[in-house]
Amino acid sequence: MEIYLDNAATTRPRQEVIERMVYVLEEVYGNPSSLHQKGIDAEKIIKDAAEFLKTKVSGSKKGEIIFTSGGTESNNLAILGVAAAYKRYGNKIITTNIEHSSVKESMKYLSENGFEIYTLKVDKKGYINLDELKQTIDDRTILVSIMHVNNEIGTIQDLVKIGNIIKDKNPETFFHVDAVQGFTKYPISAKQGKIDLISVSAHKFYAPKGVGFLYKGENVRLKNIIFGGGQQKNLRSGTENVAGIGAMKTAAEIMFKEYKNCQQSMIDNKNYFANQILATIENASINGDLANGAFHILNVTFKGIRSEVLLHALEAWGIFVSSGSACSSNSVVKKETTLTAIGVTEGAIRFSFGIDTTKEELDFVLKILQEQTKLLATD
Amino acid sequence: MEIYLDNAATTRPRQEVIERMVYVLEEVYGNPSSLHQKGIDAEKIIKDAAEFLKTKVSGSKKGEIIFTSGGTESNNLAILGVAAAYKRYGNKIITTNIEHSSVKESMKYLSENGFEIYTLKVDKKGYINLDELKQTIDDRTILVSIMHVNNEIGTIQDLVKIGNIIKDKNPETFFHVDAVQGFTKYPISAKQGKIDLISVSAHKFYAPKGVGFLYKGENVRLKNIIFGGGQQKNLRSGTENVAGIGAMKTAAEIMFKEYKNCQQSMIDNKNYFANQILATIENASINGDLANGAFHILNVTFKGIRSEVLLHALEAWGIFVSSGSACSSNSVVKKETTLTAIGVTEGAIRFSFGIDTTKEELDFVLKILQEQTKLLATD
Repeated sequence: MEIYLDNAATTRPRQEVIERMVYVLEEVYGNPSSLHQKGIDAEKIIKDAAEFLKTKVSGSKKGEIIFTSGGTESNNLAILGVAAAYKRYGNKIITTNIEHSSVKESMKYLSENGFEIYTLKVDKKGYINLDELKQTIDDRTILVSIMHVNNEIGTIQDLVKIGNIIKDKNPETFFHVDAVQGFTKYPISAKQGKIDLISVSAHKFYAPKGVGFLYKGENVRLKNIIFGGGQQKNLRSGTENVAGIGAMKTAAEIMFKEYKNCQQSMIDNKNYFANQILATIENASINGDLANGAFHILNVTFKGIRSEVLLHALEAWGIFVSSGSACSSNSVVKKETTLTAIGVTEGAIRFSFGIDTTKEELDFVLKILQEQTKLLATD
Repeated sequence: MEIYLDNAATTRPRQEVIERMVYVLEEVYGNPSSLHQKGIDAEKIIKDAAEFLKTKVSGSKKGEIIFTSGGTESNNLAILGVAAAYKRYGNKIITTNIEHSSVKESMKYLSENGFEIYTLKVDKKGYINLDELKQTIDDRTILVSIMHVNNEIGTIQDLVKIGNIIKDKNPETFFHVDAVQGFTKYPISAKQGKIDLISVSAHKFYAPKGVGFLYKGENVRLKNIIFGGGQQKNLRSGTENVAGIGAMKTAAEIMFKEYKNCQQSMIDNKNYFANQILATIENASINGDLANGAFHILNVTFKGIRSEVLLHALEAWGIFVSSGSACSSNSVVKKETTLTAIGVTEGAIRFSFGIDTTKEELDFVLKILQEQTKLLATD
């Protein structure tokens, strides 16, 4: 038996998505920059995907889709691209202390290169302080970068409130949202949220790794961070990952439909699972906002038990979870995580549910959890 | 009928390569940074590919493989990465006037940011002047970047001679080679050529678009250009394109074998095709070095005929070729090309042969070329 509960780290691509990828690899193999029909066919895959994906983030706000190698590059392009393009207008950038490392490290690079980075601290549930945000934005603030759904604890920021605060205070401050964990699961609208830049990664919604996109509102000038042949209006040079882009579109089409249908059962499953843990396992506590957090992420501290030990104990039963976020668990440098940001000093297990996770699977995981936490607590 | 002679722009992925990709997408879908078995399995795909690909470029010189989104990013990382890491040691960089736009544009960026870029001019056949190279390297020269096989006319630079000149003059000058057009077709050895950095793109050898790598010798420090979770020893953050990387390895395995077997017939076919063109079509001339150029690239000027018109005339017969390199044909800004660099003022057609291009196909192309050049010349 295999129960994969690490869907916030990555997902298993859907069969229809793989089939689409194979089709493009076999049949639409031209270089999108080629002038002949093979190139035009490949370009059409890209254009169709861009058109579709734009409707899913823009909320009819004018802008464009820039395809990238994934969420990390999208976040880099948004932040470094705005910083380079607007540095003469101001050097202040606002972010939070629970961002993904691709945002944090971009900010760190900028702070070493003449920018003032103001980092909003979140409360115990992982929410930013809207008053602090309001007070912090000034004339020199060129960018605010705040993630939608947190990858470790699932807290969802109120993008519409945030966007309104930003634009009320300084209409020329750009608003970037890392929507990697939210896209396809929670609606996002550049228009409604007054968002200028939105980062997305394909492999979080049952598409392959190595592809993603950045939505850019039409009034944003970006300085490109990759230099070359001038593809994608010179915003991202390099031959496009046509098959990955086509697959990402197919995955988005499917997941938008399916998440809509499954949302209530996923919420019910998560609440059931969380409440069973709290009711049956001593010293377990939920990190984040159980009632309002994302339906696919549940972060639990089992007091007195080392999370990596529990992770491997579960693995022995075919249950795959994460201890912290995958992107920071294996890196050279240890960094501040969302958990430390909300004041959790012990480790934690992140259960991240897939669209096909069943209540039966969760019951099995509960049983193993109950056994293993008892065993490990007595060690 | 379909005759695809644009293999230098991109290739149609091989069936075995697609199958490998599907296998990884279906079975090895974990995040390589995850601590559990699914992550370890994915990491193994990456390590195996790195190990294999390293043996194919290093010539046993110690170093590592950094996976990227393709040749453009590899070239950017090599050039910008060395420039950022070594700027305190010198600000001079040497390159040529026939590099791919991803090299040229990286150099342009550096020239606008305090670096002195010396651009070697090539002769009529596309070769750099080795004496000029020797004279130009000085104490402040941190990097020389020269491509292996030219993408437009197929000229092959003598990397071993170049490497020796560089290191004799200044052992601390790094040598970067854009090997995108040569890899799998022409042997390259970091050890023999005294090369420190080698860029490769997968989709040029029957693997998917959106993946490539940079080989880096162990003594080179690189400043990363993408910031994030610290993957790949912090040299390239972002979840790795595991399926693409696995597919690239499979493609390289296959192509190294097949090109070895097919090399002579590809040389024969190219020479036959070129000589037939010269013998039967008036005002046709070969650009580059027919005798010693790459066996998969033939660049021909048909005097008095606009290359884009001929491209579309051939396309009507199912023959797909390029007019110039695909990467510069469709971009916003028009740039100096290899053709202008070797003094060709008229347009040209690039025929780039695949491993499965047959003499029968070439005979058909010759027939159509003979007809169309007559028709178009009388227009």
